[in-house]
Amino acid sequence: MVQVYFDNAATTPLRDDVIKRIAEVMKSQFGNPSSSHSFGRLSKSLVEKSRKTVAKCLNVSAGEIIFTSGGTEANNFILKSAVKDLGVNHIITSRIEHHAVLNTVQQLELDKAIKVSYVNLDANGEVDFNHLEALLQTDAKSLVSLMHINNEIGNILDLKRVSELCKAHQALLHTDAVQSIGHYKLDLEAIAIDFLTASAHKFHGPKGLGFAFIRKNSGIQPLIVGGEQERGLRAGTENVPSIVGLETALILAHDNFETEFQFLKALKGYFIEKLTSEIPNIAFNGHSKDLEKSSPTLLSVRLPMPEDKAAMILFQLDLKGVACSRGSACQSGSSKKSHVLEAILNDEDLQKPSLRFSLSVFNTKEEVDYVVNVLKDLVNV
Amino acid sequence: MVQVYFDNAATTPLRDDVIKRIAEVMKSQFGNPSSSHSFGRLSKSLVEKSRKTVAKCLNVSAGEIIFTSGGTEANNFILKSAVKDLGVNHIITSRIEHHAVLNTVQQLELDKAIKVSYVNLDANGEVDFNHLEALLQTDAKSLVSLMHINNEIGNILDLKRVSELCKAHQALLHTDAVQSIGHYKLDLEAIAIDFLTASAHKFHGPKGLGFAFIRKNSGIQPLIVGGEQERGLRAGTENVPSIVGLETALILAHDNFETEFQFLKALKGYFIEKLTSEIPNIAFNGHSKDLEKSSPTLLSVRLPMPEDKAAMILFQLDLKGVACSRGSACQSGSSKKSHVLEAILNDEDLQKPSLRFSLSVFNTKEEVDYVVNVLKDLVNV
Repeated sequence: MVQVYFDNAATTPLRDDVIKRIAEVMKSQFGNPSSSHSFGRLSKSLVEKSRKTVAKCLNVSAGEIIFTSGGTEANNFILKSAVKDLGVNHIITSRIEHHAVLNTVQQLELDKAIKVSYVNLDANGEVDFNHLEALLQTDAKSLVSLMHINNEIGNILDLKRVSELCKAHQALLHTDAVQSIGHYKLDLEAIAIDFLTASAHKFHGPKGLGFAFIRKNSGIQPLIVGGEQERGLRAGTENVPSIVGLETALILAHDNFETEFQFLKALKGYFIEKLTSEIPNIAFNGHSKDLEKSSPTLLSVRLPMPEDKAAMILFQLDLKGVACSRGSACQSGSSKKSHVLEAILNDEDLQKPSLRFSLSVFNTKEEVDYVVNVLKDLVNV
Repeated sequence: MVQVYFDNAATTPLRDDVIKRIAEVMKSQFGNPSSSHSFGRLSKSLVEKSRKTVAKCLNVSAGEIIFTSGGTEANNFILKSAVKDLGVNHIITSRIEHHAVLNTVQQLELDKAIKVSYVNLDANGEVDFNHLEALLQTDAKSLVSLMHINNEIGNILDLKRVSELCKAHQALLHTDAVQSIGHYKLDLEAIAIDFLTASAHKFHGPKGLGFAFIRKNSGIQPLIVGGEQERGLRAGTENVPSIVGLETALILAHDNFETEFQFLKALKGYFIEKLTSEIPNIAFNGHSKDLEKSSPTLLSVRLPMPEDKAAMILFQLDLKGVACSRGSACQSGSSKKSHVLEAILNDEDLQKPSLRFSLSVFNTKEEVDYVVNVLKDLVNV
């Protein structure tokens, strides 16, 4: 049976070299990095080497990288600690963030009585920078949390511009870069971000591993306490094999960056072209049709058919071996509509079924052809 | 060079079958369990099968098992949520708990103004049950947190007795069973524990994966919020390969339970015998010399020599290829003394160097012979 995987924003297949390296470390370097004997020191050296690699990719210091169990933990850690330990009492975010940010912020609003402001967005999900600047004009201690690449519509945020606004208003800046690290190069010496979060399984690395970038001397305290691991900022025995797996995946991503980026851009361009020619009146959400303003990994399409007719569309695609999604995987268990699309689309467009296709370097033009053909038939039923 | 690993309480080597299974899942079942398509459903089914296996081993329901990134996260989750969500304002614990519990409790004492009581221990680290009962006689909403098997001296707690006291006084009971799951069989239908925590890498499974048992209808809320994973109790994409790795390790542990338990008991008995005959005046901490009252995986010895003479003893052992520790690995980076031994030994005994040897089924009598010979030479210098 044909199996076509276009849900790489939910999770990516691991690269073979990553699996191999993880298995090697599991077999030969099983020591606890906190142990002072040779087994421990060997593991410790692996962890610190990985930390240096990650730091180098972001142009920061190794001490500013804290490994976590994933992007969600990292987002919880930073946002909760910012309120608890740094005196943040005002978080500015948007309605199209991932739930790891939105739900954490809403919990903080309830439990800690902080103020939460949502920056205005236009119909493409673009941040209204004038509104952002207005929100920053406050006596409160503000933190801005805006994702670099939106996980549904692929919009790329102008982080440099946001960081300058934050700096001008003495606000802290956090960015969820889960869809961006491994696909985009970020130079954090050039962009004044205070906190950044990332996840290995979104760039062909292992599940259960991510990291937080925490700018030096931030004053942040751990969410998970216990042992003194990760410079006292994240207790729990380090997941050495997965840390090395993350490192391996990041090295491969950076080594092949330009080639893979251009490949993905061309593949997405081809996908858009085919969809547009085969399915008249198809539309695209956010900036996802714009190859410059959106990530080449993400394409959000709106089908020219009523929602009721399309109720079974994901089911039909699945039967044909096509894996894609309506929104983020974290929400696909529920029957809720995408909160991202609800925040930006008008009522009429919201009634039409939207699908997210997310691409990786393992996808092919032939797969695109197959998906477009299947989709065309479904739309024309 | 000889390499002898006697630090299995810090972490254990993985079983080959566990590594193989993890690599298989990474390769072939990479889907996100929250995705509704076939890739996702396949991953979801693996996670739910693993959950059932764990639940069966503990004689509880699958819905009561929540996978976490490890024992430390699970301890933080339960203790913090018990205070935040269940109204617990009094935690009764002991001074020989793991730092994942002690530091969390102390943080709660500071931040949430809860009362913390430490139950009295005798010179062997045995809980004073009369004192525990006295502490439970309070109007406060109490939670008792006592570990099943101590990670330094191996003492086994009479959980049944503790659970009955807790029940009689309407207190909640949490046990850190990180050193126990995979080595001991616990029937949680027979013992009224509310919360239990475990970690895969302590029983030849992967690092970065553990679980919390949370008794049905407990009212506990997540520490890490975001997506709806783990029945809403732990957000973040499930670490499917490691969950399956934990399951595999637990199945192997249970399948070989009786044989391995008797093997370890005999090996520890042999270790004690050799040490006693070769190093006169050697002593044992806690109950670790008692094969019934302590875990067969843990042996804490006190050497008949002054601390200053012994300052380099771990270093010398390491040079000879012997991996053991002074206390828990989480603290071995620091030069602090073991908080466990400080809580139970008198000043004179505390001056003597103590070492923890922790055993696994991969150790042999020949390794014991080697270690005892090396140790004898070091003591006699």
